[in-house]
Amino acid sequence: MLTAPTIVMKFGGTSVADAERIKRAAHRIVAQREQGKRVVAVLSARGHTTDELIRAAEEVSPSPDPREMDMLLSTGERISCALCAMAINDLGHKAISLTGSQAGIVTDTSHTRARILDVRGDRIVEALESDMIVLVAGFQGVSTSRDVTTLGRGGSDTTAVAVAAALHAEVCEIYTDVSGVFSADPRLVPNARKLPFVSFEEMLEMASSGAKVLQLRAVEYARTHGVRIHCRSSFEDGPGTFVIGEDETMEHPLITAVTHSTEEARITLVGVPDRPGAAAEIFEALAAAGCNLDTIIQNEPRTEGVHAEVSFTLASDDLRSAEAALLPVIADQGLKVETDRRIGKVSIVGAGMKSHPGVSAKVFRTLADEGINLEMISTSPIKISCVIRADAVPRAVEALHTAFGLGDSDVHEELPLGQESR
Amino acid sequence: MLTAPTIVMKFGGTSVADAERIKRAAHRIVAQREQGKRVVAVLSARGHTTDELIRAAEEVSPSPDPREMDMLLSTGERISCALCAMAINDLGHKAISLTGSQAGIVTDTSHTRARILDVRGDRIVEALESDMIVLVAGFQGVSTSRDVTTLGRGGSDTTAVAVAAALHAEVCEIYTDVSGVFSADPRLVPNARKLPFVSFEEMLEMASSGAKVLQLRAVEYARTHGVRIHCRSSFEDGPGTFVIGEDETMEHPLITAVTHSTEEARITLVGVPDRPGAAAEIFEALAAAGCNLDTIIQNEPRTEGVHAEVSFTLASDDLRSAEAALLPVIADQGLKVETDRRIGKVSIVGAGMKSHPGVSAKVFRTLADEGINLEMISTSPIKISCVIRADAVPRAVEALHTAFGLGDSDVHEELPLGQESR
Repeated sequence: MLTAPTIVMKFGGTSVADAERIKRAAHRIVAQREQGKRVVAVLSARGHTTDELIRAAEEVSPSPDPREMDMLLSTGERISCALCAMAINDLGHKAISLTGSQAGIVTDTSHTRARILDVRGDRIVEALESDMIVLVAGFQGVSTSRDVTTLGRGGSDTTAVAVAAALHAEVCEIYTDVSGVFSADPRLVPNARKLPFVSFEEMLEMASSGAKVLQLRAVEYARTHGVRIHCRSSFEDGPGTFVIGEDETMEHPLITAVTHSTEEARITLVGVPDRPGAAAEIFEALAAAGCNLDTIIQNEPRTEGVHAEVSFTLASDDLRSAEAALLPVIADQGLKVETDRRIGKVSIVGAGMKSHPGVSAKVFRTLADEGINLEMISTSPIKISCVIRADAVPRAVEALHTAFGLGDSDVHEELPLGQESR
Repeated sequence: MLTAPTIVMKFGGTSVADAERIKRAAHRIVAQREQGKRVVAVLSARGHTTDELIRAAEEVSPSPDPREMDMLLSTGERISCALCAMAINDLGHKAISLTGSQAGIVTDTSHTRARILDVRGDRIVEALESDMIVLVAGFQGVSTSRDVTTLGRGGSDTTAVAVAAALHAEVCEIYTDVSGVFSADPRLVPNARKLPFVSFEEMLEMASSGAKVLQLRAVEYARTHGVRIHCRSSFEDGPGTFVIGEDETMEHPLITAVTHSTEEARITLVGVPDRPGAAAEIFEALAAAGCNLDTIIQNEPRTEGVHAEVSFTLASDDLRSAEAALLPVIADQGLKVETDRRIGKVSIVGAGMKSHPGVSAKVFRTLADEGINLEMISTSPIKISCVIRADAVPRAVEALHTAFGLGDSDVHEELPLGQESR
């Protein structure tokens, strides 16, 4: 249907925070248009707009209605898009801003954390075919019952990827205030290396273990629909990091990156009855409240009839709703609850790990040599995560980064075939 | 279709300016619901929100695109409505906020000053029938080409009246920071009297000659559709002013009120060629730019072939676009332009004036006795307006108010039959 190649560009909150930055984004968008691309740009709310709106809601109501919260929060991205469209028009191009609803982002009815069901892109395509640059308000959609919905924190990434998938865009560029995906957080590890390529699988593990450059759901959506992502800086030129299919990368380094998080908390439930269904009741209650759990550990009672202990970690943001959701179960099963907000997590991620034994032993040895105690461990085929004390996280990240030789001085860039000229 | 009586309540920007006021509005809305009414509330943007958004647009673009301006400005009312819905939910009632588009406010495509074509109230009615309180974002609609539009300054009044008409509401209550319509601005005339009743015709003349309590278009719409308006205070109880059909009022006082304005400017065009169509070209250019003119005067040239002079007044806000619109005509006809921003206007309005001669003589005498020079005069069957120097306005208003005996100490309230018990 479209003749010229289509590109989706997504700008985060810091990239549109004020008039100057909106104009800069407008220039970047126009530059792509002038290279003959059809351009759709997805924008987040400006800087602290979302936080200010949340504060306004909290001033009015102790527990704001989720439908109304979505109506409120969805205004932020619309403001960014309208302002950016004005700036683009001044540069001599035609731009049109569309709300999530106008852009055809159809979601389920789960307010404040809706999932995209479909992108009915007719109106976007229509505008592109009239030579317009299209600005789409990120983070939002319209539910099957015609209400405004939002996709949850970071949902603009998902909007961008979903629009890119619907339009068969050649790439979905994610502009942020960092220049790409690094082998570790450069604030903790000065010689951290910018990664030219990361596979979807690695990016998924990195996003879920603390790397903030891309939202987890966006990466999932991109993998499912085969959308090529390019993470790059709004403030400097040059390539960032491409997130692409595993088959597109030639080399599988053993370890790609060290990630970390200190925004998790742990809940330990003591005295879980040793009967079938006891744990199920706990996790059903948490699922109903929409809490995403991370590491879960259950200690088998050593003696018959003795109660078990269940621990799990979750995002600190979800702690309050998890505690509320557990109240009936706690009363019913007679549990004792311990909450720990001082935990941290350090993870190593690498697609090559699958075929190399001995990686976990090296992780544990490295941390032990630093005198860091492991409180919980969880693994996937391409990730090893360790829960440790929050204050030990910086030391752990640096030690692992060095131990696996991930720094700029340690490795040569491994470019996939045919990509060298980028 | 509806069984219980329906009422529309409109709250202006100062009535929803902060969390405290939003909660107060919520209480008022709930009080009406608890009296068995079906309630639709139309809300304006909070306090200075609209001005802040306009400033943001001006920072980005010297002449913001009108379509995008509407997308931007329409967010303000949505924020108010979402916040108020949250507050109502906390009071134990079910509330739902609707954007102009969701509420079925269909307009033409004139961005920033759209006119309502239709109110497709199905979704409002559906919500009312599910026992919900409905909050409608004022000032906005959706155009026939599916774009967000706004109705121009004060458009929320028009939204409220249009919704009231579509729902056959028993009354449209307009809540503001004043307690009703007065016989003159109480800040200029301390003994100004609150009017219990005003006819649509009088209110139209008052709105167009400076009374700010109601927007002109809202009054026109109400008259056309027979919507009873009640102007009252958000901050105190007790009745305000009813705006009703002339046939509903028993008495027609000679003069109802003195109004004034200092927000107008005058443009004088010197050297208009004495040929057919010269004046038409001028006013066609102004009409195309959407400028609403008020008083227009043309001096007939006294000698054949000598050029004429055309003067007109218009809202100061429209001055810039009027000057721009006139540029080609000025060049073409070789005109000289004089702009005067220091003019003021004082008017007396009264339905009884029609049948009483001598009113204008009394107006001119009163102003002459105060030493005030009349620069332009315009009349309608129920209004006399005089353009004077802006700084003479306060004296003129007070003198006319006294001369026609409009003060609290001067007249007895004239209640229409059957209305005394309100």
